[in-house]
Amino acid sequence: MATYFPEVSRIAYEGRKSENLLAFKYYNPNEIVLGKPMAEHLRFAVSYWHTFTLPGSDPFGLANMIRPWDGYTGMDLAKKRVEAAFEFFEKLGVEYFCFHDRDIAPEGDTLRESNRNLDEIVAMIKEYMKTTGVKLLWNTQNMFSNPRFAHGAATSPDADVFAYAAGQVKKSLEIALELGAENYVFWGGREGYETLLNTDMQLELDNQARLLQMAVDYADEIGFRGQFLIEPKPKEPTKHQYDFDAQSTIAFLLKYGLADRFKLNIEANHATLAGHTFQHELRVSRLHGMLGSVDANQGDPLLGWDTDEFPTNLYDTTLAMYEILKNGGLQPGGLNFDAKVRRASMTPIDLFYAHISGMDSFARGLKVAAKLLEDGVFENEIANRYESYSKGVGKEIVEGRATLKSLEDYVIDKRVTAARSGRQEVLLAKLNQYLLEVE
Amino acid sequence: MATYFPEVSRIAYEGRKSENLLAFKYYNPNEIVLGKPMAEHLRFAVSYWHTFTLPGSDPFGLANMIRPWDGYTGMDLAKKRVEAAFEFFEKLGVEYFCFHDRDIAPEGDTLRESNRNLDEIVAMIKEYMKTTGVKLLWNTQNMFSNPRFAHGAATSPDADVFAYAAGQVKKSLEIALELGAENYVFWGGREGYETLLNTDMQLELDNQARLLQMAVDYADEIGFRGQFLIEPKPKEPTKHQYDFDAQSTIAFLLKYGLADRFKLNIEANHATLAGHTFQHELRVSRLHGMLGSVDANQGDPLLGWDTDEFPTNLYDTTLAMYEILKNGGLQPGGLNFDAKVRRASMTPIDLFYAHISGMDSFARGLKVAAKLLEDGVFENEIANRYESYSKGVGKEIVEGRATLKSLEDYVIDKRVTAARSGRQEVLLAKLNQYLLEVE
Amino acid sequence: MATYFPEVSRIAYEGRKSENLLAFKYYNPNEIVLGKPMAEHLRFAVSYWHTFTLPGSDPFGLANMIRPWDGYTGMDLAKKRVEAAFEFFEKLGVEYFCFHDRDIAPEGDTLRESNRNLDEIVAMIKEYMKTTGVKLLWNTQNMFSNPRFAHGAATSPDADVFAYAAGQVKKSLEIALELGAENYVFWGGREGYETLLNTDMQLELDNQARLLQMAVDYADEIGFRGQFLIEPKPKEPTKHQYDFDAQSTIAFLLKYGLADRFKLNIEANHATLAGHTFQHELRVSRLHGMLGSVDANQGDPLLGWDTDEFPTNLYDTTLAMYEILKNGGLQPGGLNFDAKVRRASMTPIDLFYAHISGMDSFARGLKVAAKLLEDGVFENEIANRYESYSKGVGKEIVEGRATLKSLEDYVIDKRVTAARSGRQEVLLAKLNQYLLEVE
Amino acid sequence: MATYFPEVSRIAYEGRKSENLLAFKYYNPNEIVLGKPMAEHLRFAVSYWHTFTLPGSDPFGLANMIRPWDGYTGMDLAKKRVEAAFEFFEKLGVEYFCFHDRDIAPEGDTLRESNRNLDEIVAMIKEYMKTTGVKLLWNTQNMFSNPRFAHGAATSPDADVFAYAAGQVKKSLEIALELGAENYVFWGGREGYETLLNTDMQLELDNQARLLQMAVDYADEIGFRGQFLIEPKPKEPTKHQYDFDAQSTIAFLLKYGLADRFKLNIEANHATLAGHTFQHELRVSRLHGMLGSVDANQGDPLLGWDTDEFPTNLYDTTLAMYEILKNGGLQPGGLNFDAKVRRASMTPIDLFYAHISGMDSFARGLKVAAKLLEDGVFENEIANRYESYSKGVGKEIVEGRATLKSLEDYVIDKRVTAARSGRQEVLLAKLNQYLLEVE
Ligand SMILES: [Co+2]
Ligand SMILES: [Co+2]
Ligand SMILES: [Co+2]
Ligand SMILES: [Co+2]
Ligand SMILES: [Co+2]
Ligand SMILES: [Co+2]
Ligand SMILES: [Co+2]
Ligand SMILES: [Co+2]
Repeated sequence: MATYFPEVSRIAYEGRKSENLLAFKYYNPNEIVLGKPMAEHLRFAVSYWHTFTLPGSDPFGLANMIRPWDGYTGMDLAKKRVEAAFEFFEKLGVEYFCFHDRDIAPEGDTLRESNRNLDEIVAMIKEYMKTTGVKLLWNTQNMFSNPRFAHGAATSPDADVFAYAAGQVKKSLEIALELGAENYVFWGGREGYETLLNTDMQLELDNQARLLQMAVDYADEIGFRGQFLIEPKPKEPTKHQYDFDAQSTIAFLLKYGLADRFKLNIEANHATLAGHTFQHELRVSRLHGMLGSVDANQGDPLLGWDTDEFPTNLYDTTLAMYEILKNGGLQPGGLNFDAKVRRASMTPIDLFYAHISGMDSFARGLKVAAKLLEDGVFENEIANRYESYSKGVGKEIVEGRATLKSLEDYVIDKRVTAARSGRQEVLLAKLNQYLLEVE
Repeated sequence: MATYFPEVSRIAYEGRKSENLLAFKYYNPNEIVLGKPMAEHLRFAVSYWHTFTLPGSDPFGLANMIRPWDGYTGMDLAKKRVEAAFEFFEKLGVEYFCFHDRDIAPEGDTLRESNRNLDEIVAMIKEYMKTTGVKLLWNTQNMFSNPRFAHGAATSPDADVFAYAAGQVKKSLEIALELGAENYVFWGGREGYETLLNTDMQLELDNQARLLQMAVDYADEIGFRGQFLIEPKPKEPTKHQYDFDAQSTIAFLLKYGLADRFKLNIEANHATLAGHTFQHELRVSRLHGMLGSVDANQGDPLLGWDTDEFPTNLYDTTLAMYEILKNGGLQPGGLNFDAKVRRASMTPIDLFYAHISGMDSFARGLKVAAKLLEDGVFENEIANRYESYSKGVGKEIVEGRATLKSLEDYVIDKRVTAARSGRQEVLLAKLNQYLLEVE
Repeated sequence: MATYFPEVSRIAYEGRKSENLLAFKYYNPNEIVLGKPMAEHLRFAVSYWHTFTLPGSDPFGLANMIRPWDGYTGMDLAKKRVEAAFEFFEKLGVEYFCFHDRDIAPEGDTLRESNRNLDEIVAMIKEYMKTTGVKLLWNTQNMFSNPRFAHGAATSPDADVFAYAAGQVKKSLEIALELGAENYVFWGGREGYETLLNTDMQLELDNQARLLQMAVDYADEIGFRGQFLIEPKPKEPTKHQYDFDAQSTIAFLLKYGLADRFKLNIEANHATLAGHTFQHELRVSRLHGMLGSVDANQGDPLLGWDTDEFPTNLYDTTLAMYEILKNGGLQPGGLNFDAKVRRASMTPIDLFYAHISGMDSFARGLKVAAKLLEDGVFENEIANRYESYSKGVGKEIVEGRATLKSLEDYVIDKRVTAARSGRQEVLLAKLNQYLLEVE
Repeated sequence: MATYFPEVSRIAYEGRKSENLLAFKYYNPNEIVLGKPMAEHLRFAVSYWHTFTLPGSDPFGLANMIRPWDGYTGMDLAKKRVEAAFEFFEKLGVEYFCFHDRDIAPEGDTLRESNRNLDEIVAMIKEYMKTTGVKLLWNTQNMFSNPRFAHGAATSPDADVFAYAAGQVKKSLEIALELGAENYVFWGGREGYETLLNTDMQLELDNQARLLQMAVDYADEIGFRGQFLIEPKPKEPTKHQYDFDAQSTIAFLLKYGLADRFKLNIEANHATLAGHTFQHELRVSRLHGMLGSVDANQGDPLLGWDTDEFPTNLYDTTLAMYEILKNGGLQPGGLNFDAKVRRASMTPIDLFYAHISGMDSFARGLKVAAKLLEDGVFENEIANRYESYSKGVGKEIVEGRATLKSLEDYVIDKRVTAARSGRQEVLLAKLNQYLLEVE
């Protein structure tokens, strides 16, 4: 049987010293960490768009990726990609994938036609899922690439565009049901504004909430039980995207009464574009009980756009896994590689190298985070640091028994200083030692 | 009678062509704009800290400001500053001022002593307010400068520090009542974190909410009726400040059930540090019914810290006044110049030049914004742009009668494009023409 | 005769109060400013790429521009664009245009074929230039879009790519000669690196210099007398572009002995991406005698990529024209609108609105800057501020007669303070008054 | 004998698994790496200002550091600090330190008085240096903190301020000679501008060069043979600092004929503030033969000011050491910890923890970099990637035998593509493996 990646066999775990570029050094799927196999902790997913459809173009450059499906078009191309994708999933050993509607099948002249295309490919994908056991972490709809979405989708000034978007969401929910998607994502590609001068922000936000409510209602109607997710991003392509970051998205969900139906899909690169660390966005989501899934990538801290690089920074993967473990894991969410090979990495094999680099980095992060937790490194520090709230006036405060008056009485003649170190330097040194020394 | 600013008389309005540096060219307090005197629209306030206490030091430089109260210390210094401040308010013709507790009176060895110092100065200020008619826009408490707040105040890991902060808030609320403050501000100077590695974010946020609730309760108890305000800022001095921006602060208030008691005090420079325009933060607050007051300043878009410059950018003042007029004004809030003269503008007269530049800039902004509104420049554009929601399928959407199904039916065979321009370039050209041509 | 923009006639100057969107309010080409017609000061150019070839795609969106040449392909498309372009130039009333080789003619399978395509279009353009009087401000070569330039052109690790780039430069220089280009630009589209880990920076920089030297040599050989220009940009598409900003480009030119043959083409948006103001980059270039030409656009200070917006910020246009007037003008350079309509401004008429907004903004900037100069507003301030260098010890310093010893003697017992204000607030208020009040 | 840090003994190397916070885990000074002891590679220096004089104040907070010399003032304080400093150097085991004139002795009313204070302390330091063997890596002069430098020092508009600065430089050069400083640094604390509107940039730059020339001349006169260094920084405290980054500083030095007398002192945090990686600035300096010394710290990529954190990021320390090893080391320069403990780390012992974290991080970086070099990981990749320049047309290009014509001939009918990957993902995975696995 012809393959798409003949130069690659099943990627195996070969251990830390392996010099084989096509082997895992740290990702050992069956290794038990904190009582569970690594693979269950990590729940890796391949993103269909970056890996099977993106051509390598950028604002100053034309398509340049060299792909085994080059030369095909239309539905033929779509089918070749499905075949290649499942070969890729199996060779890489990931259990999940994610897609937008327009990634998997070409858009037709009408929604009806586009849906017909989808039906054919979805049937094919379903078959492949059955035979391979690969599952759908989430799907979503692309409501930003087509020219009709130039002013937004749910937030378009044109009601027909809203309607069109609604039609796409309906179909994608049906696909989610059909393929057993474990989650369903909304990323508001152009839900934002270019200039406030022409924008009815109130109507746009109301409409954004209306579409989400319709989606939830329809999911209930058809019996789709996956977790709904919103993916924040602060800017790009629009000047301001409404789902700016975790906490502002939470404000939106709270305001519109949607907070019990949605969790967040946190992307590392979107975090830094919003001025936050990846860990911060994970922490904020986690503390609100809204950490649902993760787009595992990384940005360049010196660049102001979404570079969607494969995640290799071990500090980020360690602290991300730390938050994820504290969250009790991500299930039904997972770690989706919303990441693309650099434009200069245009050969097919780079797709393997890149995913291996990301999987190894998260595997190492998992091991380090697990040990940090087992040893209670940060927990002990924190318990100690905040101990004053477990007794006396601190206890009164947290139990709601203190008032401004009672507290004034307590301090009015007291010398109150802050002579205890926050020990940031100690903790950073500890983090390094764990990073390097954990077996 | 000796004066502090002998080289300056009452600043008069002399009109657009005046070459007198010590005259207003645009701010004409009694000129009627949209049916109200300019002064009532603008409600300018002088910030006590920048103008009467800041010494000019920066992370690389020592105090350098030359001030008429140089040479005094302790309570003597505090009193000289009160005298100078009211002379300044009167000569400048502003009706409001704002202060932190520690701006007006020196801190003692204990809270009791500090409060005694405050009592003496507050009595003096009250007398000056009576004789001059100058009013207190808001006061607040400084819970960030003293070393005891190195780890935060309400969010300190040390319960004694929380208690101390509570004591300060109590006293400041009493001062607010005593001086008839029209608002009361919380800016969380060090309510944030330096590193997540040592931070119990959940406890810290809970505690922040607890202090705010205590403040509200105590205000009710003593009969203080001013508007409570929170001032967002994303970072500096801490790495992450919990009240990052308008929308994340709203999330916090919604989560903790405080949204009906607090509005926001939006600072221009904090907006840009958070990655937003000033107008954006005003718009977000306004649409949530939470635009309470404004810290009128500007930042340098190329610098990453809070430069707190006097506001002279006419685009910003125009678009700010546009949002404020749409808000029905700011009252009981106002425009507080949370702005400082540059370190290199160290002579006393620069304080006048700087405030004049800010007042003229906002006065011009008011005039331009009022005309834009009268002519419905943006309103007409927007009405036109979103007209599809006033009929047909658009009406069904906004009235909640549409579903994914009904909308799919509507679009399934329809060609939906976006062939209508957003006309950003037209609107920017219009804005320029109004800026330059409004009488 | 069929036209491409039938809804637009020749754009006329109608004055400041005109409500005609298709008229100039400030740009009056024949109005005399400082002894010269506005048009001679401003030397506006239309950039062929943004206005006639860019399709509106962005990293998240497909082509969406609606253009009168839609439906044509290949050489037919190229010819339609030429016809449309000259209609556009004439209706707008600009005297200059600029292009890359690949803007005007389609790339063939080989350089020979591409050059043949160019020959045909260049002949056509030459004819149009003759009949319309429109001139070529500069041309350049696109050495970044084609996949072969994924790793750079002159700085490619592949010598064949260098050779190909050299071939393109040769042809473009011949076109420059043929069409009488007044300047010739190098923008190093991908001359930079993605990661230092795989980069021989020394070789790459040497090679970049080698190509420039070859270009200069060939220009001399064929008798091309236009001014060579380099356009700095700090990043995007690559992580680091070698011509980061004005001063680092000057370092490069000095190091490689090219400083007498090249000047700089300063783009506003590239300035801000580099962390500088537009005025700063103009000033730095001017003081080095290297301010050659300007790409007139603006960025969004809150966005981290090159938005290439039409310039409407009057502060920027005023301060730019101030530097340009101090430079004695730009000739043979000019003001090229390296600016694109927003993706949401997709109708053909937006191209006119956008250029009008830019031309009016620079015209107003010219008037304000000219008056500032006539009145010596900044010059007087500066003369006064630095007067100490015109006499005594200051004169000794600037004349090179002072030494550490002589200066120590002078100050060893002297109280030296800095009690004189820099008056930034005064100058900003002045700038506002001039902006608003200049007739 | 009383000590200043009684809770700390000589810090020993205890190896990777040590849990002793007061021990080195990676820094083993006598361990041989690439044929030299670690200590000779690393040449660590303690910066006097951060460690012995900075009080912990920030723009929103008062002094809070708890130090064993608290309570002393004036010359007594200065002497206590000297004693404490040498105890610190010895316990930490660093061989070098660095200081500004004003760090070590209090400023007097006149330069004469300040110099007298310096003389006394310098004599004391000299004695300590002799008995301990600790050496002076570099000294410099503080020409930014005193109010007289509000408008700059060499670039002040006031010639008396220039003269004063010159006097300081003279004295500091004499101290450098007296104490055998191996280098001498200029960091232009306020050599820049706040606004171009009041700035004679030409005069300021000329004057900056004049002062440097005077310094070089005086050094020659008195026989000081240390290496002169300039430390670039892009902004802060001023809006624009003239020595923006490595390459623009090189432009300045080339322009004024100073390039043969100065090298650069590269600070990591200044690199990122300028929009560059630390490695980039090191690489640029190295390739120009101007990498002289390093200020070893790190910034926060999400904060826009100079946080001067202790360097713990192992990617940064590894890639920095990689460049330093390629440079043949830094001698006579070194690694100066221009880094401060966080404000919340206010206890004396944090000074040790922080330095240990930095020293261990650089030691680990050295080991990893050395192995990367030994194995030629990047060198082989690069040799391979650029091989086309070693033969054929590539060789002609680098040997200067190619022209536009010869290259056009070569490519005119050739298909030139770029089908070879840059392999960034492979190299990042390799870097991780080396980081984790090097013994
Ligand atoms: Co994503
Ligand atoms: Co992304
Ligand atoms: Co404020
Ligand atoms: Co501020
Ligand atoms: Co350009
Ligand atoms: Co650009
Ligand atoms: Co430094
Ligand atoms: Co620094």
